[in-house]
Parts: sequence; structure tokens; C-alpha cells
Amino acid sequence: MTQIDELILPRLVALRGGLGNVPSVRLAGVHAGIKKRKRDLALIAFDAPQVCASMITTNEIKAAPVLVTRESLKTHGSQMRAIVCNSGNANACTGAKGERDARATARQAGALLGVPKQSVVVASTGVIGVPLPIDRISKSLERAAEDLEAGGEAAWDAAEAIMTTDRVPKLAAYAFYDGEKRYVVGGIAKGSGMIAPNIATMLAFIATDAPMAQEELQRHLAAAADASFNMISVDGDMSTNDSVYAFAPVTEAAAPKHFAAALRKLCEELAQAMVADGEGATKALTVHVTGSVSEEQARVVTRSIINRNSVKSMINGEDPNWGRIVAAAGEARAGIDPDTWSLYLNDLLWVDVGAVEVLSEAEGHRELEHKNIIIRLDLGIGTSAATGWACDISRDWVRINASYRT
Amino acid sequence: MTQIDELILPRLVALRGGLGNVPSVRLAGVHAGIKKRKRDLALIAFDAPQVCASMITTNEIKAAPVLVTRESLKTHGSQMRAIVCNSGNANACTGAKGERDARATARQAGALLGVPKQSVVVASTGVIGVPLPIDRISKSLERAAEDLEAGGEAAWDAAEAIMTTDRVPKLAAYAFYDGEKRYVVGGIAKGSGMIAPNIATMLAFIATDAPMAQEELQRHLAAAADASFNMISVDGDMSTNDSVYAFAPVTEAAAPKHFAAALRKLCEELAQAMVADGEGATKALTVHVTGSVSEEQARVVTRSIINRNSVKSMINGEDPNWGRIVAAAGEARAGIDPDTWSLYLNDLLWVDVGAVEVLSEAEGHRELEHKNIIIRLDLGIGTSAATGWACDISRDWVRINASYRT
Repeated sequence: MTQIDELILPRLVALRGGLGNVPSVRLAGVHAGIKKRKRDLALIAFDAPQVCASMITTNEIKAAPVLVTRESLKTHGSQMRAIVCNSGNANACTGAKGERDARATARQAGALLGVPKQSVVVASTGVIGVPLPIDRISKSLERAAEDLEAGGEAAWDAAEAIMTTDRVPKLAAYAFYDGEKRYVVGGIAKGSGMIAPNIATMLAFIATDAPMAQEELQRHLAAAADASFNMISVDGDMSTNDSVYAFAPVTEAAAPKHFAAALRKLCEELAQAMVADGEGATKALTVHVTGSVSEEQARVVTRSIINRNSVKSMINGEDPNWGRIVAAAGEARAGIDPDTWSLYLNDLLWVDVGAVEVLSEAEGHRELEHKNIIIRLDLGIGTSAATGWACDISRDWVRINASYRT
Repeated sequence: MTQIDELILPRLVALRGGLGNVPSVRLAGVHAGIKKRKRDLALIAFDAPQVCASMITTNEIKAAPVLVTRESLKTHGSQMRAIVCNSGNANACTGAKGERDARATARQAGALLGVPKQSVVVASTGVIGVPLPIDRISKSLERAAEDLEAGGEAAWDAAEAIMTTDRVPKLAAYAFYDGEKRYVVGGIAKGSGMIAPNIATMLAFIATDAPMAQEELQRHLAAAADASFNMISVDGDMSTNDSVYAFAPVTEAAAPKHFAAALRKLCEELAQAMVADGEGATKALTVHVTGSVSEEQARVVTRSIINRNSVKSMINGEDPNWGRIVAAAGEARAGIDPDTWSLYLNDLLWVDVGAVEVLSEAEGHRELEHKNIIIRLDLGIGTSAATGWACDISRDWVRINASYRT
């Protein structure tokens, strides 16, 4: 159980200001005029070369910046120096021009910062199929380079600049300790849209002052993402632009103790912030699946529950229609036993083994009036578990998504 | 190309009255009081033993009537005599009592009709986790047995009795000819809810006077369902109760010519009726995926498009946000080429190869104002194709599903 020990024992200190807490990072967020009002272009620069780990969309239609960055990471994955990210335009399905635009952005940022163009991560989020307004971006990038500063306000500006339909900027940071030595991991993210949406995109940029090798950062990021960004759902779609990038100072030595726990905690916090800010969301739903034969089984069942419109809409309507949750679990086809499960609502036994309804409909309804809903499905066949997060689906979600572009 | 020939060439004559056209069938639909007002209990009897083919839910949580019927079909699959189906209650997640209730219903229907209890298909649709009001069903079943009659009105009564949130009963029938000999295939269905919903359930009962062996009927039903019921989406969920049963007179000889084509046409018509009547639907969407390397690839991509909330909501909002369609296709991970596709809207070229937008936003919006929307994605990599059907997702869908039970 060393894994659980590592997650429970370390002292993690939550910090305000997200990425701004990481000493090597300078940031800027400016208004390039892609979006009407708010900041829409973020520039993030590192004082020294960083190893970079990435999790990118599995969608077969990948946006130009995703493809360009993937290429850069192949040669410069341990010498990365900067991130440029715009909102308001995904630069996806934009043909050859889209790729030229993404390359031009990386080249310009590299020139402004005096670093190789291949050391610049480029990212975009917004509407698909519209050419990037490259002149505006180019002009504003110069301004962003002048604005670059460490910590504080700048991190909020950058977090705002990557937002699309998000209502609040998403920043998180944790300090952790390897013996006496203090380290920091911080990040900014944007979700909203639909989370793993196919227009709005999920993006996260994470950095730490804890040195490690690229392979180790990649391994830790994959594990943390599996427990966080891959366990949330606003509407279950997967974007052409979804990307998570993590950066750390280069070393061949092992990562400091507790880095994995701090990174996972950070990713969980950013993921939960995305769900809480889901388009039209009125409630936050946490789903625990316990008593599974494996963690993977629990995750598959959890994802099946959090991805269902039928579950999201009953949460929205405060309708204690527990059959929908159980049916969603069965639909995962993960090998659950129809006769051994029990269901809990906000820690109260809701339906006992054998489908015995314990909470009355009135009691169920009262529990669903809470803003934070916790559902636990105990599969009753093992000792593993997983957790996922979702928001409800409201009439507002439909309103927002019926007219995203027009 | 014999397969396509067979689908195009036969003369299929559409008939009113669905199942009522099949000579061996008698039907009744009565009000048992499970639902407040409308008929909620259907009884369908065959004058002679029938072979029965079935497609049942792949959900691991299967409703009691699904399990009981599956058992009966194992021993009596070529000697089936009747169907009992109630709406308003799914008899799912109802424990041991649920199974006793399903068996009791089959036993009583068998006794009333003078046939073995294992020759009775039982089916239920409605809310999950509530015990079946077996006394009401028992009393009303006697009345239904007295009401049984052939054709006409009775088929409409039975079709109404299996509805849940459907707004209209769904009946379809076709006559087809093997040489001079005329045959009929007819059916009734209910969808609505979410189609493949996890509470509302998709059900279809189909019968023909064309004799065949059980294995052949099963093979034809599977092929027809793959091209129809498996190619529609209202919200992408899969119910504990979803079932399609087809019946035919027993023979060891081959099915009459053109049965496959008539059955497929029937299933497509019932499937399209379900989509048109989807909860809160305001528009009907037909998606063709062409130019694929295989029919299976086209189906996977089609299903990915018709199942997306993001696509359904842009159709609802008449928002020509074509990136969502392409992103949905990419999300299928079916091996499409990001550089060879083109997209059509109501037969107009929308986006050409290389992501060149041909229709203006205003033109796209105008096309989306139609009530029937036809989208074609040409993958540009082969010669196969598939078609799927969906409805839009409206604010009304959320309203209906936020309070299904309460």
C-alpha cells in the first residue's frame, strides 16, 4: 500500500496564485482582439530549459498547434522554454494555413525570447475551422513579451487569457516537502465548454521547481491525469485541442519525494474546478465507485456514470431516480454483479443489496437539493475504488451550446 | 452487389396498421392503471407457434422480464405464442420479487391463452427500481385476453399501451412479393425517452407470415437492427430493458425472397419514428458517412456524430458550427484521414477537402432552419457508406428528464 501511503502522508500546502508560485516562471496575459473583451493571449516563459511532459487529445482530427508542438517536443522535449496560448480560435481544421500560423507563432515567440522556435509550446482553444487572426496575435505577442513578469497578478492574467466560456480563471498550486527541502508545483487550466469538449477544449499548463528526467515527469503526469482530467465529465466529448503540458527543471536524478502526490492533488483540484464551472452547471457531482475488483474496473464504471445525460439531468432536476445510476453502471459492461451492489447518497444508504430502497423518494429529493452531491456505488465484489466528478446538465447548457458560434 | 440489388429491387408496399396486418396475430391494449391515463398493458397472441428472434440490451443490469424471456427462449424459441408488455414500470432492479412478478405474468398469460408459460415473451418499460403493481396487471390481463382481436384498432391500442413518454404510437408494415406470393411483415415499437435510454427503453415487436427457421430469422433481425435501431440516437444511453423480438411461422425451408429487404425497411421506419419522437426533439437529423474503407468504419463514425451532445445542440440552435461534426468524427478513432474529408449540408457542399469553407455562415444557418437536416461527411478514402438518424437536444429534453420520476 505504499501508493496510498504516499498520497495520504505528505504535507501538501495549498497556495494561491497557481503557476505564479513556480520561481522559474514569468507570465503575461493580453487582449489580442480574438475575443471581444477579455484577455485572449497568454505567454509563459521559463528562465531555464525545462523537460516537458504532455497528454494530448486522442481525436484523429488534431488542431495545428497540437501537431506543431508534438513535433517540437520530439527534438526539444528536454529544453523547452515557453508557451504561447490563445483563446477564441482553436486553429483546428484550418488546413495548411493553420499549420503555418502555428509555426509562425512559435518562431516569433522564440525570437522575442531569444530561444529556439522548437522550444516553444503553442496551444489554441475556441471555435474550429476559422483561420487564426495571425496579425493580431503577432502584434499582441510583442506586447505580451514586454509584459512578462513573475508571480502574482501575471498568473491571473495568463489564466484569464486561456479561458473561453469559463466563468472563472482556474489556478492551483501546492508546496510539498522532501525532508527539509520545499518544492512547489502549480498550474493554470481551462475547461468549461463541455470538458473534453469538441470546441471549447480542456487545457492545462503545469510547472514545478522539482527537477526530474523527462520520462519520470511523463509517467507522473499520465498517472495524475488518469485520476483527474480523465475522470471528469461535463458532456463527454473529446476535443481536437485537448492538451496538458507539464514542465520541470532538467536532471537525471529521481524526482523529489511526494512530487507524485502533489501533482495528483493539483490535477484533481484543477479538474474539479473545470467541472464546477461547466457550462450551465448548477450542481457539482462526485461519484465514488467502491468494492470493485480493480481500480480500472472502478474507473470504467465511474466514467460511465458521470458521462450519462440521464444521470446529469436527474441531478439537475433533484429527481431521486436511482435506477438511472445503476443502469449507467451496467452499461459500462465492466463485469459488475447485478445482485451485489448497494448505493449511497451523500453518505446515506440509498439502495441496499438486493435493490432494497432505503431512502424514501422524499428523503432522496431532499438530499439532491444540496449543491454538492456525492454518490457512491459499492459494487460489492472487491476492494478497489475510483472517483470521478461531473456537473449537471441544465437547460442553460443547451442555450449556450445551441449558439456557440452564431 | 447482390445485397444492394436485393434492397433496391423488391417491390415493398407500405401498409397502415403495423402488426395488425399479420394474419396470425391478435392484439389488445388496456389500461391497467400503472400509468395514470393511457393504455399501459399490451397483449399479443399468435394463432400458431412461432419462431422467435431477439436482440436484447447489452447492459449488465438486465430487467427481470428480459432475463425470464431469455430463459424461455432457450427451450421454447421455436414455439412462442404470445407477448405481454407493460409500460410505466421497467421491473428492473426489483430483486427477487421482480423475477417472481415477471414469471407470474407469463404464467397467467399462458393459462388465459391455453399455451405454455415458456411460450410467452414478457417485457416491461418505465421507471427502474419500483416493484411491479402485479395485482393490477393480473386483473387487467384477464380483460386484455377477452379483448384480443385481429388487425385494425387493436394494433393501435397495443402500440399505445407500450408507450412511455412517446407522443405518438409507432406502427409500420410492408407487403413484399416472392414471385406471385404476397407476404407481410409488421411491427410496433416505442422509443422516445432517450432512445436506447436507461429508463425509457427501446422496444419493438415484429411479426411476419413468411415462414422460416429460427436461425435465419435471427440472422436477418441482427442485420436489420444493425442498420436501423443501432444507428439512431436521442441521447446515447442503453437501457436495462431494450429489446427487439421478431416472430415468424416455423419451417425448415428458407425465408421467402426479399424478406431481408422488407424487414430492414420496416426496422428503419420504426427507428426513424423513434428519433422523430425523441424527447423534446424539434428537428430530425440524418447523417450519411460516405467514402469509407468499410461499412463498419462508416457506422462507427456515423454513431460518433449522432451521439454527440455538441452536434445535437448546434442543430437545435441552427448554428452552422461544422467543426463539431468533424471533431465528432475524429473522436471515433476509426482511422479517418484528417486531410481528405469533405462535408455536405442538405446536399450542398459545406466544407471542401482541405477544410475550405464553401457555404457562408449565413447560408449554413439558413439550411439549418429546415426541420429535416441531412449531413453527409465524405471521408474520401474508400467507397463504403452508412446512415444514421438522430434528433436535436433541446431545452425541453432537459426539462423532461430532470423530472421523469418526481
